Amino acid sequence: MAKWEQDVITYRRDLHQIPELGFQETKTSQYLLDTLQQLGLDPVQIADTGVMADIEGNRPGKTIAIRADIDGLPLEEDTGLPFRSQHQGVMHACGHDGHMAIVLALASRLQATRDFPGRVRVFFQPAEERPPGGAPKMIEAGCLDGVDEVLGLHLWASDPVGTVAIRSGPFMANADQFTIRVKGKGGHGSEPADTKDAVLIASMIVMNLQTIVSRRLNAFDTAVVSCGTIRAGATFNIIAETAEITGTVRTLSKIVQDKVIQEIEHIAKTTAALYGAEATVSYQYGYPAVINHQPSVERLERSVTGLVDILHPDPAMGGEDFAYYLQKKPGTFLFLGCRPEGESFPHHSPHFQINEKALPLGVEVLYRGAMSFLHEN
Amino acid sequence: MAKWEQDVITYRRDLHQIPELGFQETKTSQYLLDTLQQLGLDPVQIADTGVMADIEGNRPGKTIAIRADIDGLPLEEDTGLPFRSQHQGVMHACGHDGHMAIVLALASRLQATRDFPGRVRVFFQPAEERPPGGAPKMIEAGCLDGVDEVLGLHLWASDPVGTVAIRSGPFMANADQFTIRVKGKGGHGSEPADTKDAVLIASMIVMNLQTIVSRRLNAFDTAVVSCGTIRAGATFNIIAETAEITGTVRTLSKIVQDKVIQEIEHIAKTTAALYGAEATVSYQYGYPAVINHQPSVERLERSVTGLVDILHPDPAMGGEDFAYYLQKKPGTFLFLGCRPEGESFPHHSPHFQINEKALPLGVEVLYRGAMSFLHEN
Amino acid sequence: MAKWEQDVITYRRDLHQIPELGFQETKTSQYLLDTLQQLGLDPVQIADTGVMADIEGNRPGKTIAIRADIDGLPLEEDTGLPFRSQHQGVMHACGHDGHMAIVLALASRLQATRDFPGRVRVFFQPAEERPPGGAPKMIEAGCLDGVDEVLGLHLWASDPVGTVAIRSGPFMANADQFTIRVKGKGGHGSEPADTKDAVLIASMIVMNLQTIVSRRLNAFDTAVVSCGTIRAGATFNIIAETAEITGTVRTLSKIVQDKVIQEIEHIAKTTAALYGAEATVSYQYGYPAVINHQPSVERLERSVTGLVDILHPDPAMGGEDFAYYLQKKPGTFLFLGCRPEGESFPHHSPHFQINEKALPLGVEVLYRGAMSFLHEN
Amino acid sequence: MAKWEQDVITYRRDLHQIPELGFQETKTSQYLLDTLQQLGLDPVQIADTGVMADIEGNRPGKTIAIRADIDGLPLEEDTGLPFRSQHQGVMHACGHDGHMAIVLALASRLQATRDFPGRVRVFFQPAEERPPGGAPKMIEAGCLDGVDEVLGLHLWASDPVGTVAIRSGPFMANADQFTIRVKGKGGHGSEPADTKDAVLIASMIVMNLQTIVSRRLNAFDTAVVSCGTIRAGATFNIIAETAEITGTVRTLSKIVQDKVIQEIEHIAKTTAALYGAEATVSYQYGYPAVINHQPSVERLERSVTGLVDILHPDPAMGGEDFAYYLQKKPGTFLFLGCRPEGESFPHHSPHFQINEKALPLGVEVLYRGAMSFLHEN
Repeated sequence: MAKWEQDVITYRRDLHQIPELGFQETKTSQYLLDTLQQLGLDPVQIADTGVMADIEGNRPGKTIAIRADIDGLPLEEDTGLPFRSQHQGVMHACGHDGHMAIVLALASRLQATRDFPGRVRVFFQPAEERPPGGAPKMIEAGCLDGVDEVLGLHLWASDPVGTVAIRSGPFMANADQFTIRVKGKGGHGSEPADTKDAVLIASMIVMNLQTIVSRRLNAFDTAVVSCGTIRAGATFNIIAETAEITGTVRTLSKIVQDKVIQEIEHIAKTTAALYGAEATVSYQYGYPAVINHQPSVERLERSVTGLVDILHPDPAMGGEDFAYYLQKKPGTFLFLGCRPEGESFPHHSPHFQINEKALPLGVEVLYRGAMSFLHEN
Repeated sequence: MAKWEQDVITYRRDLHQIPELGFQETKTSQYLLDTLQQLGLDPVQIADTGVMADIEGNRPGKTIAIRADIDGLPLEEDTGLPFRSQHQGVMHACGHDGHMAIVLALASRLQATRDFPGRVRVFFQPAEERPPGGAPKMIEAGCLDGVDEVLGLHLWASDPVGTVAIRSGPFMANADQFTIRVKGKGGHGSEPADTKDAVLIASMIVMNLQTIVSRRLNAFDTAVVSCGTIRAGATFNIIAETAEITGTVRTLSKIVQDKVIQEIEHIAKTTAALYGAEATVSYQYGYPAVINHQPSVERLERSVTGLVDILHPDPAMGGEDFAYYLQKKPGTFLFLGCRPEGESFPHHSPHFQINEKALPLGVEVLYRGAMSFLHEN
Repeated sequence: MAKWEQDVITYRRDLHQIPELGFQETKTSQYLLDTLQQLGLDPVQIADTGVMADIEGNRPGKTIAIRADIDGLPLEEDTGLPFRSQHQGVMHACGHDGHMAIVLALASRLQATRDFPGRVRVFFQPAEERPPGGAPKMIEAGCLDGVDEVLGLHLWASDPVGTVAIRSGPFMANADQFTIRVKGKGGHGSEPADTKDAVLIASMIVMNLQTIVSRRLNAFDTAVVSCGTIRAGATFNIIAETAEITGTVRTLSKIVQDKVIQEIEHIAKTTAALYGAEATVSYQYGYPAVINHQPSVERLERSVTGLVDILHPDPAMGGEDFAYYLQKKPGTFLFLGCRPEGESFPHHSPHFQINEKALPLGVEVLYRGAMSFLHEN
Repeated sequence: MAKWEQDVITYRRDLHQIPELGFQETKTSQYLLDTLQQLGLDPVQIADTGVMADIEGNRPGKTIAIRADIDGLPLEEDTGLPFRSQHQGVMHACGHDGHMAIVLALASRLQATRDFPGRVRVFFQPAEERPPGGAPKMIEAGCLDGVDEVLGLHLWASDPVGTVAIRSGPFMANADQFTIRVKGKGGHGSEPADTKDAVLIASMIVMNLQTIVSRRLNAFDTAVVSCGTIRAGATFNIIAETAEITGTVRTLSKIVQDKVIQEIEHIAKTTAALYGAEATVSYQYGYPAVINHQPSVERLERSVTGLVDILHPDPAMGGEDFAYYLQKKPGTFLFLGCRPEGESFPHHSPHFQINEKALPLGVEVLYRGAMSFLHEN
């Protein structure tokens, strides 16, 4: 067993014990700096708690950057693991500890020989869990400067160990939020004629929003529009003056996202106008869609054929700020199967666990991905 | 000016200063007892804080009962009147002080000569403002025993002084409350297929309830169905599991009321079933409709012709527990105009005032109404 | 039995055999002219097939006009009566034969003695069954000139013989027609995004029209809005470009009628706009509401008390062009019960029959109505 | 230029002049038999007007079958071509003439040398345009017996010459039809209460059907549900007793298709039940989805790389009875771009034309596809 195969477990368990929330990852950041320095690298701290280091190959070539995210979640860990969180109310419940460990082990492996053309940059990004996320700050700080390709992975607990899930094009969704506020006219429940009934108007809006996905988009203009909340009125016998609806929009392309935004606005305002009332829509963009680059995906697939089973799932409708890197540079984001052997819990659960057998496999996947890029270019 | 014309103002101002909430009208009750005793009557206390007394005519005849309600409202008076409420947070803001004063003055006037056939019973009822109201308790205590006809009035601030508003048949509405609870199935906002979206189901129910009045009743099956509140969901990106709608139903007949109840139940449950979800409806009856008796109304109208302008309004869609007396005995309930000369405020406002000129007119209206009954029968 | 009591049956059976459609009542008109001349009157023909004659009292006074309508319906009679229709495909299936007979018999009775003050005008109007009706033409021709009061009746087969149904104010409804045309954008059924689906838009309009009666009017703003037809699309897999909805509106007042028209227009156009589509509404006014005058109704009621049972029904939601006379002059329109003893069929049925016992009663009711007006004024 | 390159144009123009409707393709069938015999093959007639022939390679191997469809459409051609349809009211307006020509030329080319392992079967199928289609009959007659792989193409006028559009998995949709019949209760437009308004119920069903795609399916459960027609009611003032809705359903999988069928049934019946009415749904299955086999698609793509541009479109939501072959055998169906140089008209238009430059390319594509299969297996 290579040294890095042992180290990756050690790194992960060390980091699992010191989870920190977004932009507060000070111990984590120090651990990364120390480890990279011990490898003989020259890491820098950027974007508050982010870290970046370059491993130079022994001959000229291109540069590929590999990203790990580093923040934990505001959860009280309930796993019973011997190396469980030492920080009350914070937990690595999404696998970011594993991401860091894999990338550290990869750096160790590459630095051992440096027998490759070009350069591999590893960077560790804060605050993935909290929109607007740490990625924009990292980019601003230069993490993509001089980079030709970018690569990242996410441990994925619903897929078995030994799989890589990947697809060209949309891989994870735009995940946005909207709020519709209706301003009608209240009055006594026994005399509706002079009112603009906000309960009715809001209900009409919810009904009419259904037609966005059913009629205003085609079958492959993938989108979900869900109203999560509706609130109107203070008491049973008074007609409500105002109402509020909140919801989420998931899309895979800017064109569809723009169409949905425009239709929500149009439906809300026009439905209110049916009653002589008014509606306003505020729309908060979440992370953009993660769009993988086809040549990059195909190269990666070729490089790991035989090593893992390759899955081609539908896009995941959740969001990831890795999207910002792929807006700037070609590259690939992938899911690495890490389903535990016993019972499995979803990401963001206080019971969440990964199968550590996935960790050395992750190093190998990223190694092959990086090497195939550098050798082919 | 007759003594009772002065007394009616005094009574009213005295009582205005000691408003008390339903079934707590102890000072009020004592005032009524004392006053009636001073008139030489023999009042009894019934139904906790209610009061009743009979004025015997000087020759045999029928019995007519005249009702005043006596409770105040939980409001801090803001009128600036010199005789304003001495009880913090309680106010006579619906004219019940005036009702009591009118009926006391009527008793005084009748007792002065007793020159009429039969008997006039005056009774003072607690807790009109609080369903289920004081009327059922008064009836149980015997206030209608031996009574042939019942008469009551309400000061009405939107009509001018010098008017009586009255109509045969339905005069005030059934005013009920309903609550619909939807039990769907929650889930993530990006994956609606496996959920039963309570926001959507509740919105559908609100839309479908519109068809009760528009399609399931005919033009003269008078009814209002208003949803006052809708509530569902905790956050924008989670599909809601439950929803609650509350509303009010106003009707003028038992047949229409029963139809509406049945349709609300059917619509709620069937709309939920559209989604494989469930709905329950709880229905709270308020006061029944006030149904005036035609011969009684016609006699009263004849008796006050020339004295006041008689208005024949549409029924008022609010409720009154006088309805219970009219379920037991023939009789009439009427509105006595009392609009102030300056600015006017609605009943139940902390600024509410009446025009005291209506008070002696009220005595005269009830006097004529009672006398016309006793002399004609 | 007085002569007119026999004549009224004869007249009715004669006229029943020669039913004619609106403005084609030539034989009918001749029969009326001949009969009135035989009575010694001096009838004139007006408004094409209309007839008018004045019976002069033997002393000065006011003038009351009494109307009968004279047209039949395009139905093949199926009653088996010995005096059934001699005109194929035309039938007196709404009682107009009886209306004429009653008014002829009344003229006969009045002319026999002329012992009354003033003047009674009888007039026979064409084309009641066909909007815009014969009434406007009769008015233009002078049938109301010099008239102080107008009186009319309708045989009513759902009420028993011996009843008069009457009410002050609205007695029969505005009965109008609307047509909504939606212009969307067609396309293939598999690709809705670029279309404006007229089937969906029309369905939305039908749903939204429900809110006129349920929310945009109060409980006593009596109205019915019914969509009778909906039509859209040519085949199952093509998205429809256009749609048409037709319906009827029934109201009792101009204010409510105007509000409903405005709301239909607003709802149709705004609902179409929800889809970027267009809608146009055409609205055809039918007869206006029949509004009885209170003093006239009250006088008539007094005059027939003891003779018949007086019913006070809700307004009928059908229409009548007698409405035009009541827009010009005070007066009353009433329903005279004529339910057959055996099975009863609705007006406009090929099986329709009346109970002839109602006919002499009708003469008596109109006689009393006319005399009470002339003697009291 | 090879002989087959000239022949393919000749074949196509000959066949273009004798279009025939499904299962009536007698002249066409004879032309195919004659041509194949002249090539030295031994064709057989099957499935009424279908034709099949085997070209034997000069050494052992697998068998690949290649299909052309042969029927025309009931259209009057309006292209002005010198070789236009000689059959009045029938036209090759979907490119089937080209399909036959390509497969005949391929047979010619293969038979010239027979220098390949195994066997190529060509078969010509009647009645693709008319569900249930000719494919089931051809299969029953043995066209797939002994076959290892199946291949087919469709000329596609919206793609340019020089392209092949192809994708693994769902390539063309299930295309089904549904009819919903509502049985309510009619009545007069002025009295809705006793009716079950079929116009309203049908409108509600259309609205509720929107929720299938918006809520009852997830983002990747691709489906379209379109209502093409709605019909209810006879006249504006009568409430309709019955209504009919027709529409189409497009899906890519049996699971989603089953879910949609179940939901249409549930929504129609439950929405009708909201009104105490009844609804029935009849569902006609069209062609199943065309599902391409991944290894087959990948092999074909490799074989034509460099020859054509390969497009990976979303699945087409139309239907094809080639689907039945792919239910039995591995294989691929593809679109061959044939956009004319000037104005382009859609398939099934009387102006439809193809660019004949696509024809020899089609021969080459099928040749490479067949050879790559036979040589690799």
